[in-house]
Amino acid sequence: MQRPLDVLGSSTDKKIIVRTKNGENIVGTLRAFDSHINIWLDDAEIQGESSIKLGKVLIRGDSIVYISPGQ
Amino acid sequence: MQRPLDVLGSSTDKKIIVRTKNGENIVGTLRAFDSHINIWLDDAEIQGESSIKLGKVLIRGDSIVYISPGQ
Amino acid sequence: MQRPLDVLGSSTDKKIIVRTKNGENIVGTLRAFDSHINIWLDDAEIQGESSIKLGKVLIRGDSIVYISPGQ
Amino acid sequence: MQRPLDVLGSSTDKKIIVRTKNGENIVGTLRAFDSHINIWLDDAEIQGESSIKLGKVLIRGDSIVYISPGQ
Amino acid sequence: MQRPLDVLGSSTDKKIIVRTKNGENIVGTLRAFDSHINIWLDDAEIQGESSIKLGKVLIRGDSIVYISPGQ
Amino acid sequence: MQRPLDVLGSSTDKKIIVRTKNGENIVGTLRAFDSHINIWLDDAEIQGESSIKLGKVLIRGDSIVYISPGQ
Amino acid sequence: MQRPLDVLGSSTDKKIIVRTKNGENIVGTLRAFDSHINIWLDDAEIQGESSIKLGKVLIRGDSIVYISPGQ
Repeated sequence: MQRPLDVLGSSTDKKIIVRTKNGENIVGTLRAFDSHINIWLDDAEIQGESSIKLGKVLIRGDSIVYISPGQ
Repeated sequence: MQRPLDVLGSSTDKKIIVRTKNGENIVGTLRAFDSHINIWLDDAEIQGESSIKLGKVLIRGDSIVYISPGQ
Repeated sequence: MQRPLDVLGSSTDKKIIVRTKNGENIVGTLRAFDSHINIWLDDAEIQGESSIKLGKVLIRGDSIVYISPGQ
Repeated sequence: MQRPLDVLGSSTDKKIIVRTKNGENIVGTLRAFDSHINIWLDDAEIQGESSIKLGKVLIRGDSIVYISPGQ
Repeated sequence: MQRPLDVLGSSTDKKIIVRTKNGENIVGTLRAFDSHINIWLDDAEIQGESSIKLGKVLIRGDSIVYISPGQ
Repeated sequence: MQRPLDVLGSSTDKKIIVRTKNGENIVGTLRAFDSHINIWLDDAEIQGESSIKLGKVLIRGDSIVYISPGQ
Repeated sequence: MQRPLDVLGSSTDKKIIVRTKNGENIVGTLRAFDSHINIWLDDAEIQGESSIKLGKVLIRGDSIVYISPGQ
């Protein structure tokens, strides 16, 4: 039986993109997540015309629309 | 007795469209869901003038307006 | 003793209109609902200048403003 | 000891106005309510330059700003 | 030990102003409140260039920014 | 072990500023707070080009972005 | 087993940036946090064309999009 959060379980230490409700795309390496879908990324940056480097970041689950590890 | 989430139960491994609160339509193959209506799609893309490929994606339930498997 | 959700209980297999918080009116045949007011419609379409056919759809309760079976 | 929901308890089968968070005023006859302030109205219509008749309607409590039976 | 809701407890049957999240100021006489900060006002009106009389009104707690009995 | 709400515990009877989600800054003397971060201020006013005096005010916790006692 | 909130645990007494849902960046020294991700910062200021000094501040968890200690 698969569950949606398995998407995250199989992406640990891989690069993912997080889309936030305020319309930003944050890219980084997934280090940890919890049942609220709070996300810890390393080497994160906000994508845009000129990217903004964040480094380590904790993203609150309830600010997130979707999360994608790509293929 | 039918329940609303049966719409998802009968759509596993089928193509569905997810409408998010920020106005995007994400199309992909349903792999898993849970009681919060968190959704795991494969081969997902955001529909628009030019589609954006996401591949595998986890969509948070509370960001979703509706989900449709079509006919 | 009547309860608000009786409006839905008496509308099963009838045509209803669902108004969502993002301002769309979705019309379809009510198949099932639950205590969160998640709604399963069949033969659904989004009303507008040109209607958009959805077919079967699951609408999340917390995206809904009101639901009306008409008379 | 009075409680706020007594406003609804004393308004059953009377005409009330419901103000929703998306800025609409819905007028109708109160048939039932619950602790979430979900509301069932009969003979409801959305007030505006030209009123829109809804007939029977279930309004979700968390979409409501205020409810008034008038005097 | 004082608690924030004591502001309401000491304002029963007095005139208060309620600021809602949609930017309206509703003035009226406080009759009752509960732990969700649902508010029952009598003789209420919405302040503005031309006030709108509501009479008796139930305001949902989660639509409220602040409540003030003035001095 | 310090906790975030200690910021409020050490500010009782002192002047604080409360930033609300609708963009207003409310300044006043903190009288009480609870675990929901509901706030009771005395001698409160809304800051702006011309300040608006509120006197005593109860601010709902879920309307608040941040609270600062300054230095 | 790492958890997302470890990002905060390892940042106590260090400078972090907090991005709020209303689009402000607040920079300060992390003193404490809790499971709701309520945050206590010292020496905080709101970044912008001209920074606004806040000093000590309590930021409500549900107003936060992300938190970053940088590298």
